[in-house]
Amino acid sequence: MTQKDLALAYTPGVANPCIEIEANPENAFRYTSKSNLVAVISNGTAVLGLGDIGALASKPVMEGKSILFKRFSAIDSFDIEVDEKDVDKFCAVVKAIAPTFGGINLEDISAPACFEIERRLVEELDIPVMHDDQHGTAIISSAGLINACDIMNKKLEEVKIVVVGAGAAAISCSRMYKSLGVQNIIMIDSKGVIHDERTDLNEYKKEFSAPKAMTMEEAFFDADMVLGLSKPGTFTKEHIALMKEEPIVFALSNPTPELFPEEILEVKPKAVVGTGRSDFNNQINNVLGFPFIFRGALDVRATSINMEMKVAAAHAIADLAKKEVTAEVKAIFGENIEYGRDYIIPKPFDKRLMVDVSSAVAQAAIESSVAKITDLDIVAYKLQLSEMI
Amino acid sequence: MTQKDLALAYTPGVANPCIEIEANPENAFRYTSKSNLVAVISNGTAVLGLGDIGALASKPVMEGKSILFKRFSAIDSFDIEVDEKDVDKFCAVVKAIAPTFGGINLEDISAPACFEIERRLVEELDIPVMHDDQHGTAIISSAGLINACDIMNKKLEEVKIVVVGAGAAAISCSRMYKSLGVQNIIMIDSKGVIHDERTDLNEYKKEFSAPKAMTMEEAFFDADMVLGLSKPGTFTKEHIALMKEEPIVFALSNPTPELFPEEILEVKPKAVVGTGRSDFNNQINNVLGFPFIFRGALDVRATSINMEMKVAAAHAIADLAKKEVTAEVKAIFGENIEYGRDYIIPKPFDKRLMVDVSSAVAQAAIESSVAKITDLDIVAYKLQLSEMI
Repeated sequence: MTQKDLALAYTPGVANPCIEIEANPENAFRYTSKSNLVAVISNGTAVLGLGDIGALASKPVMEGKSILFKRFSAIDSFDIEVDEKDVDKFCAVVKAIAPTFGGINLEDISAPACFEIERRLVEELDIPVMHDDQHGTAIISSAGLINACDIMNKKLEEVKIVVVGAGAAAISCSRMYKSLGVQNIIMIDSKGVIHDERTDLNEYKKEFSAPKAMTMEEAFFDADMVLGLSKPGTFTKEHIALMKEEPIVFALSNPTPELFPEEILEVKPKAVVGTGRSDFNNQINNVLGFPFIFRGALDVRATSINMEMKVAAAHAIADLAKKEVTAEVKAIFGENIEYGRDYIIPKPFDKRLMVDVSSAVAQAAIESSVAKITDLDIVAYKLQLSEMI
Repeated sequence: MTQKDLALAYTPGVANPCIEIEANPENAFRYTSKSNLVAVISNGTAVLGLGDIGALASKPVMEGKSILFKRFSAIDSFDIEVDEKDVDKFCAVVKAIAPTFGGINLEDISAPACFEIERRLVEELDIPVMHDDQHGTAIISSAGLINACDIMNKKLEEVKIVVVGAGAAAISCSRMYKSLGVQNIIMIDSKGVIHDERTDLNEYKKEFSAPKAMTMEEAFFDADMVLGLSKPGTFTKEHIALMKEEPIVFALSNPTPELFPEEILEVKPKAVVGTGRSDFNNQINNVLGFPFIFRGALDVRATSINMEMKVAAAHAIADLAKKEVTAEVKAIFGENIEYGRDYIIPKPFDKRLMVDVSSAVAQAAIESSVAKITDLDIVAYKLQLSEMI
């Protein structure tokens, strides 16, 4: 840094971009880091499987997530830990600091507060806001569901899905499956199947309330899929045994799944099994989604991340698993990888995710009218994406 | 990044530091970026000479300042623009996000709100908080004042100082000069000399209220020093002519000083003149202070930045100007630099600032009992500082 650099970065040079931004706020996207900057924000109330460990103790997770943004999609990212559990006050804090950023990734905030927080921030801010614990899992598991159905010749409109867990991710997955066409979803929380006769349901659980009481066994009977977003042991081999012969079992409790793949396959050898872990096949890993969803959203200056964009991301991820596996991915994960029961979703290090998912999201943003940049040359954009990382 | 790195930075590896921090919050300083991370926070109400341009438009200044932290003292820094002018709400926002950071540099917040904001945050947070516009200018101009008095054989206890301007920096400079021993300070705001008969004074201006009304000319008469923190033209050559034969004139309005050095020297050829500009001698530049003050404060885990630390910084900066000028600095600023009227404070690129100022601040923090780390080996620390940048 020279004396001249100092005069530019500090006084008097730095006054010029300030004046330009004051005259036209859009210039902030031109003259500051804002256009490529996503905050990872948490209050530490639902961190990994650890629960409410507080804002400070959540910092390693948020720092790690920021690194993933940079590594996977070249997005600058910074973590903010907010010591505030009250919904109103938390929203006020995030809104107040929002000018700093081009997008906000909410993380590890407990349900049901997270729904209200996300809803309000999406509504009140003009930059994309997404609670990744809700939508990340929804998008990636949707991609897995789409391909598992394809491989097993199931129709989304006809599958019966049991969702074990009723937290943020469970609600969001269920909503997204419905938007993909799924009609039969039964949700189970710590007190059993959620149904209309129960009086202890919040408005979010009510969305997925069954018309009448039933046992967990009745819920699993003849089901096509179980989505586990709960704890180890909440469902057993006996439950799996009640399902269809070719079930989809996503046991996403982390780091220990509800049931291990070998236990599931023991009961249903033709099952498609997914977990949250990298050491088994079909890892339902949010890192396949959030870096590229924000990349696409930022690049067309989307004012929100809507369902159209999320569905586009899920389909782009699903489609990529059907493409020939690259040599690079084979080198890491083995030569035998090919589309099928053991490979329904792409691997995290597949560089085509950047191109396919980001461009699909950007295009969906434009088509659903939430993009400020609408004249995207999609061919040039894909080329640019491929050269970015 | 490999699959293993991903398992460490993301799930499941990242759970381990979270658990350690939840058990003992001190571990955040060990396992996250917190220990070396300073936020540069503004609400954009008093940006440079531009005034209240708003949070968003202030972003370039805050980004630039963050870069200086990194460049000058190897402190990681991130800018946060807070869209909130209300004192209570602004403080609530900063307090809420404070777990993220190891220190907070408040910037470009208008007076008198800035006094209350800083006072509260210093009181309520256990990490160092400093409003640099107040104390940075105070510390650097104090260093200049100390050396100018040394060169001109003036005694701090006897000098008469006129402060033109009554904003955040003016109040803070005046307070610091008093703590150095100065007894005679007359302050002038846009309505003239501040005195007890005026009814329009806030509590901060009252601290420096003269006992009776006087004209600006009376204030300047026989004065040893004028500190300009106002606008071009608020004082003139005629005012300077009223001062002592060897006056100190710090004309810090930026980028255009109240009077240019050549105008001042025309009237008082023996004056010591300082400005805020890098293209004149004796630049009163905050970059001589804040990077090293926070470096010292962070390194001993100071819970605040108190007057003892600021005074220690001022003396360390003043002392450095008396040392032989390094070849490196001469290469940039000319071979003829030596301690005297044209060189009363060190240059920004003098690497000894890091060692001298940071260690002085760290030591003062320990001695004034605000440091959590008290067993600092000062020789080893100085060596470490010299190798850090």
